[in-house]
Amino acid sequence: MTIKDLQPVAGNGLLHRRTLLRGALAGAMTGYTLVRTASAQKLADDPWSLQPGAAVPDYGVRSRFEKNVVRTLSNPNAEARTQHARTPHHLLNGTFTPNPLHFVISHSGDPDIDPDKHRLVIHGLVKQPLVFTLDALSRYPMVSRMSFIECGGNGAPLFSKEPIQATVQALHGLVSCSEWTGVSLSTLLDEAGIDPKAKWIIAEGADATHLSRSVPLTKAMDDAMIALYQNGERLMPGNGYPMRLLLPGWEGNMNIKWVRRIQLTELPAMSFYEARTYTSILPTGKAYQFYFIQEVKSFITHPSPGLALNGPGLYEISGLAYSGNGRISKVMVSADGGKSWAQAALQAPILSKAFTRFRMPWRWDGGPAVLQSRAWDEAGYVQPTRAEFVAARGESSRVPAVTAFPNEHFNAITSWAIQPGGEVRHVYA
Amino acid sequence: MTIKDLQPVAGNGLLHRRTLLRGALAGAMTGYTLVRTASAQKLADDPWSLQPGAAVPDYGVRSRFEKNVVRTLSNPNAEARTQHARTPHHLLNGTFTPNPLHFVISHSGDPDIDPDKHRLVIHGLVKQPLVFTLDALSRYPMVSRMSFIECGGNGAPLFSKEPIQATVQALHGLVSCSEWTGVSLSTLLDEAGIDPKAKWIIAEGADATHLSRSVPLTKAMDDAMIALYQNGERLMPGNGYPMRLLLPGWEGNMNIKWVRRIQLTELPAMSFYEARTYTSILPTGKAYQFYFIQEVKSFITHPSPGLALNGPGLYEISGLAYSGNGRISKVMVSADGGKSWAQAALQAPILSKAFTRFRMPWRWDGGPAVLQSRAWDEAGYVQPTRAEFVAARGESSRVPAVTAFPNEHFNAITSWAIQPGGEVRHVYA
Repeated sequence: MTIKDLQPVAGNGLLHRRTLLRGALAGAMTGYTLVRTASAQKLADDPWSLQPGAAVPDYGVRSRFEKNVVRTLSNPNAEARTQHARTPHHLLNGTFTPNPLHFVISHSGDPDIDPDKHRLVIHGLVKQPLVFTLDALSRYPMVSRMSFIECGGNGAPLFSKEPIQATVQALHGLVSCSEWTGVSLSTLLDEAGIDPKAKWIIAEGADATHLSRSVPLTKAMDDAMIALYQNGERLMPGNGYPMRLLLPGWEGNMNIKWVRRIQLTELPAMSFYEARTYTSILPTGKAYQFYFIQEVKSFITHPSPGLALNGPGLYEISGLAYSGNGRISKVMVSADGGKSWAQAALQAPILSKAFTRFRMPWRWDGGPAVLQSRAWDEAGYVQPTRAEFVAARGESSRVPAVTAFPNEHFNAITSWAIQPGGEVRHVYA
Repeated sequence: MTIKDLQPVAGNGLLHRRTLLRGALAGAMTGYTLVRTASAQKLADDPWSLQPGAAVPDYGVRSRFEKNVVRTLSNPNAEARTQHARTPHHLLNGTFTPNPLHFVISHSGDPDIDPDKHRLVIHGLVKQPLVFTLDALSRYPMVSRMSFIECGGNGAPLFSKEPIQATVQALHGLVSCSEWTGVSLSTLLDEAGIDPKAKWIIAEGADATHLSRSVPLTKAMDDAMIALYQNGERLMPGNGYPMRLLLPGWEGNMNIKWVRRIQLTELPAMSFYEARTYTSILPTGKAYQFYFIQEVKSFITHPSPGLALNGPGLYEISGLAYSGNGRISKVMVSADGGKSWAQAALQAPILSKAFTRFRMPWRWDGGPAVLQSRAWDEAGYVQPTRAEFVAARGESSRVPAVTAFPNEHFNAITSWAIQPGGEVRHVYA
């Protein structure tokens, strides 16, 4: 078989996802990517094959050749303002985020909390206020679940009227996905006894900002968790050590880190972050407030800006899709800027409110191409085009810094243009 | 509700797994684990709530309070012999292992491989020998899967005639579970073209040991992978950076790290590790060789030695189950040394050849108890009792160090005895 034998299913070289099945590609890559050699078995011994390696450490350290795989920092000197650390999705693969690379937004740095001194209080409209130590929480039944967390402001640069040239890390790096393990919040609220008048909880962190958000009691009793472990080990300091509120699929800022207080109330607190930062102004002039769910979204990570194509031939287009409304049901991919589409393969298991990686085989002929992905979720929502999205939600002449501009919950299609030399650029299409 | 209202389903306080469902425990924990206070809302501000925290780093670092969560090392000074680093399962939770804590066995340390210079060769009984760079492999379609890897010698101390007092880390720390992402080996073998005479592959590492193992071609063409990513990022140096062979569910030593050569052959190589180290002598005097699958197994991580119980009351018994034959179908737990059993809850998703966490609510009355877990897999295998196991496979008067003693593929039931004060000890029961 050669690359010419592979039948496209959509414009500009998209191949059917069955091309990913066993045997379907046999021989097709050879002309493009491989060194053929009759003396392949004569391997040279590099230095690392000739002498003992380093001592195995008690807590593993990655290869020195990977030191460029880092989060980008908006405020590396920790000046007295918010710090953002963005996940390098173009340098990762698979379906979740290793702890050192999980995105962080911190408004007063990473607090250095002694877990034995930390307390979680549940009070307000309850029959019996309760104070939990970490040890006390550790005796409760636990649950584990994969869940993405996404900042409401992830993708904010795409509100810009002109496409900003940046990597997927800069554009979509404020979302990550982990396995979280902890105690269901409903278990703890049941323990305290809920006053029927209670309709909201107000969650507050132990950080110097004392960041607080209001959450409807219905969500608190649904799938909310007091998370104690992240990807198997205790939470990272920037992700809420020793405990955080997890609200699967809901705006990141509400997933209160370093959580120390859950107060049950009749009404929301109208705290700073819910009344100002995460309230956008719509083109109609209305406030877009208490909009909690991170809606269905996808973006292509490979190829993407910074990962140039190395000559024509076969490639795998892959990326991440997720929805705060449940499982991803379908991802379509286009290589011609949305004129034609083909259905991508989804990596199993497909979990609710978690990253799903999609994969699409593609034969690049070396000419111009515009790559897009579009996701659907099981609740029936579809990721909007950018034109549909900005018509409803507005756009901005600059990357917005204050809430008088629309800059939240961007979930429209992202487009990557392949240049003839293989460079990848961010475009609107 | 109080703890007295919870109905047991098996001896010595085991409670039905429905007790884990929402609302089932309401009020039952209060008398045992919580501080009740009428002034819960008056939280003290600790220092970390009064001043800005640390700068967010570009590659996250865990809390200094977690520095005791490390792998134990058998050879910390990297003397010229094998190094073992064991996973601390009693200090983790959830269903997989963070990269810095994945177990490592290295026979010549962690090689410092330049990924741009590393090559993977496929040769032998193929139509066309091929040489792959990391870049070339990265253009192939990829797959992701959760998979445990377990050393054939994991649990070897349990061959001892007397129970060795040690933590679950020391007894079962040579198994870990990760999401692996890479290229299906079948894709690469198809690319090279398989000679019909080929029945085995011989895989060889680029480490100084040049560790090599033979693998039946049927497994290589089934679910084997050349793994390039581990839990989202590039492999750890101790786990094969920049690439390793992954044979889901098969003996760890065969999952060749730093893989540089795949040779297709008619017969196995009879290499050092398959002919000597991983060949046990059975009580009958026969060699136990080419036994590849890590069979169904489970062990309780919480509570376990080193994690003492803090007074009577409710606890969650939880642990890990896995099978090289597929998915876990059932885990039973006993609190009375195997006299009676109750079915544990299994954390979804239950994935083939991956860790499954089981959970069982338990009311400890403060008296003696012997905790056990026993797992079944979808292929119909059941974890043996220790008595059944040693009758077939033998036991040893010491921790065996050479293959003249049985020391491989231990998968029998592990028993933890709770002492009246709450201490947990390893026993045979």
